[in-house]
Amino acid sequence: MFSLEEGASFWNQSLTWRIFFASMVSSFTLSVVLSSYHLHPGQLTYSGLLNFGQFESLSYEFFEFPIFLLMGGIGGLLGSLFNHINYKLTVFRMRCINKKWLKVIEAAIVAMITATIGFGMIYFLDDCKPLGKDPTKYPIQMHCHDGEYNAVAAIWFQTPEASVRSLFHDPPGSHKAVSVGLFFALYFLLSCWTYGLSVSSGLFIPTLLTGAAWGRLIGMGLEFVWPNMARSLVLFGWANPGKYALVGAAAQLGGVVRMTISLTVILIEATGSISFGLPLMIILITAKWFGDYFNEGVYDIHIQLSGVPILPWQPPPLSNNIYASEIMSHPVVTFKTVDSVGYIVDVLRKETYNGFPVVEPSSIPESGSKSFGMFRGLILRSQLIVLLQNKVFNESPEVWKSMNFNMKLFQDAYPRYPTIQQIHVSQQERNFTIDLRPFMNRSPYTVQHSASLPRVFRLFRALGLRHLVVVNGTNEVSF
Amino acid sequence: MFSLEEGASFWNQSLTWRIFFASMVSSFTLSVVLSSYHLHPGQLTYSGLLNFGQFESLSYEFFEFPIFLLMGGIGGLLGSLFNHINYKLTVFRMRCINKKWLKVIEAAIVAMITATIGFGMIYFLDDCKPLGKDPTKYPIQMHCHDGEYNAVAAIWFQTPEASVRSLFHDPPGSHKAVSVGLFFALYFLLSCWTYGLSVSSGLFIPTLLTGAAWGRLIGMGLEFVWPNMARSLVLFGWANPGKYALVGAAAQLGGVVRMTISLTVILIEATGSISFGLPLMIILITAKWFGDYFNEGVYDIHIQLSGVPILPWQPPPLSNNIYASEIMSHPVVTFKTVDSVGYIVDVLRKETYNGFPVVEPSSIPESGSKSFGMFRGLILRSQLIVLLQNKVFNESPEVWKSMNFNMKLFQDAYPRYPTIQQIHVSQQERNFTIDLRPFMNRSPYTVQHSASLPRVFRLFRALGLRHLVVVNGTNEVSF
Repeated sequence: MFSLEEGASFWNQSLTWRIFFASMVSSFTLSVVLSSYHLHPGQLTYSGLLNFGQFESLSYEFFEFPIFLLMGGIGGLLGSLFNHINYKLTVFRMRCINKKWLKVIEAAIVAMITATIGFGMIYFLDDCKPLGKDPTKYPIQMHCHDGEYNAVAAIWFQTPEASVRSLFHDPPGSHKAVSVGLFFALYFLLSCWTYGLSVSSGLFIPTLLTGAAWGRLIGMGLEFVWPNMARSLVLFGWANPGKYALVGAAAQLGGVVRMTISLTVILIEATGSISFGLPLMIILITAKWFGDYFNEGVYDIHIQLSGVPILPWQPPPLSNNIYASEIMSHPVVTFKTVDSVGYIVDVLRKETYNGFPVVEPSSIPESGSKSFGMFRGLILRSQLIVLLQNKVFNESPEVWKSMNFNMKLFQDAYPRYPTIQQIHVSQQERNFTIDLRPFMNRSPYTVQHSASLPRVFRLFRALGLRHLVVVNGTNEVSF
Repeated sequence: MFSLEEGASFWNQSLTWRIFFASMVSSFTLSVVLSSYHLHPGQLTYSGLLNFGQFESLSYEFFEFPIFLLMGGIGGLLGSLFNHINYKLTVFRMRCINKKWLKVIEAAIVAMITATIGFGMIYFLDDCKPLGKDPTKYPIQMHCHDGEYNAVAAIWFQTPEASVRSLFHDPPGSHKAVSVGLFFALYFLLSCWTYGLSVSSGLFIPTLLTGAAWGRLIGMGLEFVWPNMARSLVLFGWANPGKYALVGAAAQLGGVVRMTISLTVILIEATGSISFGLPLMIILITAKWFGDYFNEGVYDIHIQLSGVPILPWQPPPLSNNIYASEIMSHPVVTFKTVDSVGYIVDVLRKETYNGFPVVEPSSIPESGSKSFGMFRGLILRSQLIVLLQNKVFNESPEVWKSMNFNMKLFQDAYPRYPTIQQIHVSQQERNFTIDLRPFMNRSPYTVQHSASLPRVFRLFRALGLRHLVVVNGTNEVSF
């Protein structure tokens, strides 16, 4: 679902099926490995690595919806702030930190500062609780008196997953507001700094942790403001700071990555509470709307910065008056149905295009006609290179005699075609000609030069095209 | 997911999003209604109507995979048998049972026979068990001694959902093999007879029940053949007849409807056991493969019988040598860019086409050229009817004067256009002409007459097209 929503600009149904099957196989393999790890090999019931713990009774009331909406909005704002800072940081990194040793140094600095901040917070914040009521598994004494444990260290000294679980499930009163608040502020900045560093690090869990921190803070605030209401409604699960931690986590993640379907599903799966689906969805939509007002999702920002050609879901707005002839690649380079080897080699060396329209020059030269000639087909760079490599020239008929195995020639070369620089063509061969007609694609997709941008966009996206030839009213390749 | 896999021949991403949101809202509404029904209004944790009960520990071992595969195969065979019988029955119904009163009589006959068979089975089969071990909620004495209950009646006298739940979860030994076996045979035939009857009846639950019956029978058989093995492995959940009932239910349903993704998800949701996902998937694929060898899924059969135009996922196999010119609609009917009102009216009355290519007749009449003229655009039946209705003729210039609100004309008529029979055109007006150029779609999608069927198929399916004009190498509409 993640790849469907975020990663692909072309999709077809069989891909759905393949991805679903692959997920099932990976889940099965994980189960096999985990069952061996837990010393019950072959008993295949272990599933999932990411689990934030099941909420016992995650109920909600109608009057909580405005609070959810508000928190969704906050998530959108904080998410867009995160994206903005990270965007600036990434641009700075691309400009200034482009040596390998600089990247190592940057990573080391971030690690040092993170550790310092963590220890500093544990040291300077006095959040000690008596042992026994400790919700974490391994209580840490650290700077506390004997018989006490350090609640701040309990958050910092777990894996982030476990910290998220703590913030979701710790009973009310486990943390001081000031520790959670400071933790949120520092972790927000640190995770923003870390994402995009030259280390393999994630985004989901740190963002969820940031969100869980401010969400829990809001839950604690609600309890503080309306203590009686909270107490009378505690049976219904209201003012459960853990629930608000989940809401905050969803809102923050939604604000940063701007996905809705897959995030709803991931959060439902990780918390095992299908009945909380609609609130989660509404929170994620609100976060997306608020965030989209300022900038794009963090993945889209990074995709754009990396220069990856990906098409969004919809054509750009207000593009109905832009025509195919205006957005097509310039200059148009075409080959004639029978063209000279020298010209083909020169074009392939000079241009970077991967597909070329093949035209038949009009017999009647029309003055003022902006056209290369009648469109006949499309030939790919790789095909031309195979033809040149095998010297399939009109002037070398012995090659033609043995050319009944057309397909084999191309299949053998697939998929590692040589570059044009690796092809040697002698001076004599440059005057030879190639007949492209037996090899070209004779009926590729085309559009009229008067087709609008949305129409062209839909063709590219729905069919997963790489080349689309723009022709005029008489099927001639347009300038 | 069901509609994605089975119901649609055109899909786009925003549909995914809308369907997901609609599902969430419906789940929310259900939760609101159920919470009021259970006297906790506003407490929104009630979810789902269809629930076959959670399996406590649905584990499986490697050596069970061959059994699953075998059962998947059986499901495929039984499913294709079901589809074949139902196909013949549906054809018979379309031919012979075409009066309303006949349909009522058929439904009444089926109801009577079903009831008779149910009571007959309860009466003639002696499957009485002592009370107290009864797994059903309301034990029925029926023809049994005092202090006993009738195990056959326990299956027949529940809703089918509850019967499925019983077969999944009743402890081993709750049923005699002969009762389950006979129940399967009779229910298979009855459900096949019922589907397609002129009553609102389902397919999922009866098919699941049939499958659960033979699946449980196999589970009981396994226990009978290898009792020691079963006993030593009972800890691991092996030889649990309920598990095999689930496997049989999945295989049978997979064999009948031939879906994989959505069925896996539905069965995982209805039993709450994600760890059983891969076996379910493998069972469903096996059932699909076996079944597809004989015929199509029951929905596809009914779609075809009803004459609904739906495109499958993939183009038909071995269709690479079929060209667009061979499969396009014949005869081709075109309009000239400026055509006479009389001709347009006559064509609209005679033909049923909804879209017409607009051509410009070639100025140089070429002998032997099989073409109507240069392709200029596409005009829809509805547009022509609006033009005729508003008398937008070249000879009535006063209309043209006020024609700056082109769009409004068409928007007002949308979506209930009159038929051509409702349009009155006088004898004088028949000689008038209409200029179609301002109204037609000037750059619709086209294909070359030499494009292959798969290429045309992909255009139709990926873009959700209704009309596609076939043109020749010089952009003239082909014959």
